[in-house]
Amino acid sequence: MAEAASQDLLLAAAFVSDAQYNRNIPFKTSPEAVRLYYLYNHWIMRTATYFFIFLNLSLAVFEEPAVYPLPFLVTSVVEVLCLVVFFGRLTHFAKVTLRNVFWKDTKNICIMVAILLSLTDLAIYGVLRMYDVRSIRWSRIVRPIFLINFAESRQIRRAFRSIRNTLPEITYVFLLFMFSLLMFSLMALKLFGERNLQTAEGLPYFKNYLEIVFDLYVLVTTANSPDVMMPAFDFSSWYALFFIAFVIVNTYIFMSLFLAVVYNNYKKHLKNEIRKLAYMKHCKMIEAFNILKEEEGAQFVVREAQWKQLVKLVAPDISNSHRELLLRISDDEQKGFIDKKSFVQLADLLNIQVITLKIRSHPLGQWMPGVYKSAVSRFLRSMVRHRGFVWTYDVIILINAIFIALDEETPYISYAEWVFLALYIIEILLKVYTYEPRAFFGKNQFWNWFDTLIIFAALTATILNTTLKSTTKYNSQQILDIVFILRVLRLIRIVDSIQRFRVIMNTLINIVPTMLTFGGLTLVVYCVFAIIGMELFHGKIQFFPANSNAPHSLECGNAALKDSLFARAKYCKNNFNNFASSFIVLMELTVVNQWHVFANGFANVTVQPAKLYFIAFHIVMVIIIVNIFVSFILEAFFVEYSLEKSEVETAIEQKIQELGMGVQEDELQDEHLLDNMESAEHDLEGEGGTKPQSKGLVFKIASKPSFPLFYLIFCARLSSVASL
Amino acid sequence: MAEAASQDLLLAAAFVSDAQYNRNIPFKTSPEAVRLYYLYNHWIMRTATYFFIFLNLSLAVFEEPAVYPLPFLVTSVVEVLCLVVFFGRLTHFAKVTLRNVFWKDTKNICIMVAILLSLTDLAIYGVLRMYDVRSIRWSRIVRPIFLINFAESRQIRRAFRSIRNTLPEITYVFLLFMFSLLMFSLMALKLFGERNLQTAEGLPYFKNYLEIVFDLYVLVTTANSPDVMMPAFDFSSWYALFFIAFVIVNTYIFMSLFLAVVYNNYKKHLKNEIRKLAYMKHCKMIEAFNILKEEEGAQFVVREAQWKQLVKLVAPDISNSHRELLLRISDDEQKGFIDKKSFVQLADLLNIQVITLKIRSHPLGQWMPGVYKSAVSRFLRSMVRHRGFVWTYDVIILINAIFIALDEETPYISYAEWVFLALYIIEILLKVYTYEPRAFFGKNQFWNWFDTLIIFAALTATILNTTLKSTTKYNSQQILDIVFILRVLRLIRIVDSIQRFRVIMNTLINIVPTMLTFGGLTLVVYCVFAIIGMELFHGKIQFFPANSNAPHSLECGNAALKDSLFARAKYCKNNFNNFASSFIVLMELTVVNQWHVFANGFANVTVQPAKLYFIAFHIVMVIIIVNIFVSFILEAFFVEYSLEKSEVETAIEQKIQELGMGVQEDELQDEHLLDNMESAEHDLEGEGGTKPQSKGLVFKIASKPSFPLFYLIFCARLSSVASL
Repeated sequence: MAEAASQDLLLAAAFVSDAQYNRNIPFKTSPEAVRLYYLYNHWIMRTATYFFIFLNLSLAVFEEPAVYPLPFLVTSVVEVLCLVVFFGRLTHFAKVTLRNVFWKDTKNICIMVAILLSLTDLAIYGVLRMYDVRSIRWSRIVRPIFLINFAESRQIRRAFRSIRNTLPEITYVFLLFMFSLLMFSLMALKLFGERNLQTAEGLPYFKNYLEIVFDLYVLVTTANSPDVMMPAFDFSSWYALFFIAFVIVNTYIFMSLFLAVVYNNYKKHLKNEIRKLAYMKHCKMIEAFNILKEEEGAQFVVREAQWKQLVKLVAPDISNSHRELLLRISDDEQKGFIDKKSFVQLADLLNIQVITLKIRSHPLGQWMPGVYKSAVSRFLRSMVRHRGFVWTYDVIILINAIFIALDEETPYISYAEWVFLALYIIEILLKVYTYEPRAFFGKNQFWNWFDTLIIFAALTATILNTTLKSTTKYNSQQILDIVFILRVLRLIRIVDSIQRFRVIMNTLINIVPTMLTFGGLTLVVYCVFAIIGMELFHGKIQFFPANSNAPHSLECGNAALKDSLFARAKYCKNNFNNFASSFIVLMELTVVNQWHVFANGFANVTVQPAKLYFIAFHIVMVIIIVNIFVSFILEAFFVEYSLEKSEVETAIEQKIQELGMGVQEDELQDEHLLDNMESAEHDLEGEGGTKPQSKGLVFKIASKPSFPLFYLIFCARLSSVASL
Repeated sequence: MAEAASQDLLLAAAFVSDAQYNRNIPFKTSPEAVRLYYLYNHWIMRTATYFFIFLNLSLAVFEEPAVYPLPFLVTSVVEVLCLVVFFGRLTHFAKVTLRNVFWKDTKNICIMVAILLSLTDLAIYGVLRMYDVRSIRWSRIVRPIFLINFAESRQIRRAFRSIRNTLPEITYVFLLFMFSLLMFSLMALKLFGERNLQTAEGLPYFKNYLEIVFDLYVLVTTANSPDVMMPAFDFSSWYALFFIAFVIVNTYIFMSLFLAVVYNNYKKHLKNEIRKLAYMKHCKMIEAFNILKEEEGAQFVVREAQWKQLVKLVAPDISNSHRELLLRISDDEQKGFIDKKSFVQLADLLNIQVITLKIRSHPLGQWMPGVYKSAVSRFLRSMVRHRGFVWTYDVIILINAIFIALDEETPYISYAEWVFLALYIIEILLKVYTYEPRAFFGKNQFWNWFDTLIIFAALTATILNTTLKSTTKYNSQQILDIVFILRVLRLIRIVDSIQRFRVIMNTLINIVPTMLTFGGLTLVVYCVFAIIGMELFHGKIQFFPANSNAPHSLECGNAALKDSLFARAKYCKNNFNNFASSFIVLMELTVVNQWHVFANGFANVTVQPAKLYFIAFHIVMVIIIVNIFVSFILEAFFVEYSLEKSEVETAIEQKIQELGMGVQEDELQDEHLLDNMESAEHDLEGEGGTKPQSKGLVFKIASKPSFPLFYLIFCARLSSVASL
């Protein structure tokens, strides 16, 4: 019986944690499946999956054409290993979930097909290789599928789904844009084609319709402005009007239109997704409730003891007091049980970060109370807390900045570096002495962590460099570079002293997690294009150091580039000869400028239709992904600007206040002041002894949702909408 | 007594029309002032003011350095004339408005100061000129003040006010951005400064801190990507990481942040403005009501007769039936009077475009009923109405496109041009024959107007060209160019046949009026920068035709440009030698690409700090104005996408339906079908005879607000908010 109850609890906990983390895995309810399910979601398993996904992707670095070449045998063994791990993970998932659900899910099918394709391609390539026949490793472009389709990378998949849903609308705007482009090209052909004008390179100007279309497409991206206009403009000033009209219509209006369409659709689809998610969450919580419910009077409820065990299972790392708080919120009237409505809220309650502030005295105060509470120590601590302390260090940072800008060679200045390092270390020590160390290195104290890491890294690197210098009389350039960068990064701290800047910086820091999703998206697009690019352009363009005397070293080792803009601009190192170079080229193409020089250069060394590769990349990356990125940043900022606490958050906060364990934000000058370097909004204060319930313990809602930001807020808001 | 009543009506009508057009002129209520007020708002007076504002601005074209030089005497007389007109307008305004209000308004003071400054400068310049001393006409940069500050250009002033309100927030982000730029520059100096690297032009690379800051600022605008990175990248691939980090932080994140801040603030301030406006409107309507009110039972009301006279005064050009409709809405229960609440709505009611569709038979049907109603005529008309007719012409347009792309010289093709022209003219005639001409050329029939104008312009130009050719054996190039453009523009019509495209095009057309505001904004910024630019760079760079043998003709007539990128790219015609050239250069700077080549080129021929001019232009134009433009397009599209009819519109529509004069949108196949080329949304149908009230008359709310778009919608929505 006890065993059965515990089984029920495990199953309910699985449902609740699914709801909490917005997972949508329809698992089987047998005890064995639930155990497998826990194993499947264990952080080690998840991290391992990610590790193998990235290992598989990074194989491109070691395979031909390689940055760091490894024998084919090694890379193929690693690839097979990765595929086996993926297959294992999939089998594991199949055992957890229902059979018919598993086979209906396209992402599972995708993974299986991708594994099969990769194996087949590997086998064919291996066999052909034995007979010394070179073939294309075409299966490499399916590798990003693993990153998209494993259940762990839900965010990226959602982004891809949004893109897919946005495509029809974008397509219409794109067709209209193409129509406008073709019309303007036709006009250009008629207006300039028969004038026998020449470009700055002496080539015929606007003679061929397709070339005009390409040139004007480049003008839309502004990459060849004003060069493309100059010959016509030199001929007659009035022709500038044609190009002005073109730029207004195509660059300004159509490109804004793309952003508007992408933004609008992305927002719409995201809302739908989140609505669906909230509904799914609700269903999961109801299932959990139904497992644990017991009859109490006219209604079904969950007993307090059950509930506590459930929370312990779902969130083992939250403190007892936090759990007690959640219980008080769920069981408002202390009846000893939780009703359905309060129970369903649990997933959202668990998601809200409540900072438990233990009002502890400083450890030194406990170990050496005599010394710590002496007049000198008190003076020291009040000095560190004083606003002047911050200002003094701001001045020091500014002086440091001037010293960095000055020449390195003067011995006084390199000694000064040691002085600054010492000053910064003293600052950190003083702060740790004054504030409670565990509070100083708290979870949300980004800047404290940042400072400490930077200073100690700089210290280590400087010592290492000095040691090397004194023993081998030789500066290691890599270490010196790192020292330089760390030294400059230290200056960022000054931003933290100005309230307005800190607000902007905090917003930027809050967006980081969501930007990682776009990092993933970009990675997928880059991988696919890099692999295609390497197949198309590998080895066609070579980079030779400045003093090389290889044939055609000035033309990037390819006679076809003679007199081309590509060779003249010395772009030879921008090539697709290995994975890393390809990424850098794609990065430059994302920035857009000069992409037509790349397109023309690579088309010259292969075939003219190769330009299509560059146009395709521009459409996918710049018109779609970058616009989504911009939409995302816009939306994230609007949410940050208009951040209101959700209903659930308000409920918690109310309860915290009711229990007398809240943070009084107005009593700032107190002895227990934790950190006066934080903004007013962050100012924490604990007045433990006045209220009976609080045992040196205060709670505070984390002022900004630190995880997927607006996603969470939406969830919390929509959960009430979706409560069916 | 009648005279007094009429005075009251005039005064009330002035208040109502102020409310209707969102004017905020606190005029005096004396009879004379009201008469002057009417004169002040007369369209001729307003148009004349605009004419003189633009005349004053366009003087820059004729003054030294001139595009079309005119003697100093002529331009100065014209300028004095303009200033006199402005002064007259201001005096007129002073007579209309209250004395203390007039002197408190900064815009009046601004205009007066601007007039004084202009006169002083003109006098000094004239006197110095007599003694052959050349001085600077510095007052020319105050001329755009007239465009901003005359009450007529309210939209532009509002945009400027929004910008001013957005500035503090932008400044903080900008400072943070500058801090990031300076930090990265410091790192770049430390990392690359001592490597003795060289740029592609053989210049030292990243040696001087200020130059690094400039180069990296240019990289933020992406204009020198990837050139600025290549030397470091060639030295070591790892250094690419520095530039990638730089681009992600500064180009992607900070530039999106600018857009976010501008968009957010612009939206916020616009909402505030509109809230204020709605309040002001309400006050004006209350004042009008208080003038006309009479006691009726327990409440004050306005009698129907008074109301009708008022509407006739305010909107003399609306039809009797439209006025009747408005009365029915205001006096819902036909009590013979209008209460306060309904009266206040009047300003909004007048703003809503109600299309009065008179169901008239075709004039030919009245003149020659026998012919027009014959079987042949009926067949012809049903043929034109058939979907196949549209398709046939779509095919013709496509064939036309192919003919245009083919070579002009073949005689058959130039004959074909006549065939196409004839076909298009036949189409228009057939349509006018089938549909009622006044409906065909209705106010909202944009495409019909477009077609007709294009075709007739093409016909005129082609005939003119042929005449010239046959009489003088010589093609006029200008006319030929216009013929080419018109010929291609005809092809746009094909867009109109595809539903999805038409929706996008209609949205674009709806944004045009609001884009004009940004045209005004841009004009002001361009004028100021063009005038400064001409003072700084006039004559420094000369353009010589290709075969010129002037000294330094390859270096744009300036030895300082030898070997510069500017001269090598043949940018000599991009100079500040006259007003028109300056505008084109500023346009190219707005597009951003290659702006650093301009900045370096112009700095070389003058002094290095001249680069600040280009940076200032970039900040003002690209970071602020273009972002506002993008925000505006985004907002406009979101409003278009989520367009719901406002409350007032719904009320009118309800009333139209109640009165049985609505348009039945489902009966499409009717004989009276007006225009089956319009979208389903636009399909108009009038079934006159079935309901007793409708005397061959139907109403329809214009499906999109055609004037300041989202502004109106906001107004209508907020008027209920602001009802105090």
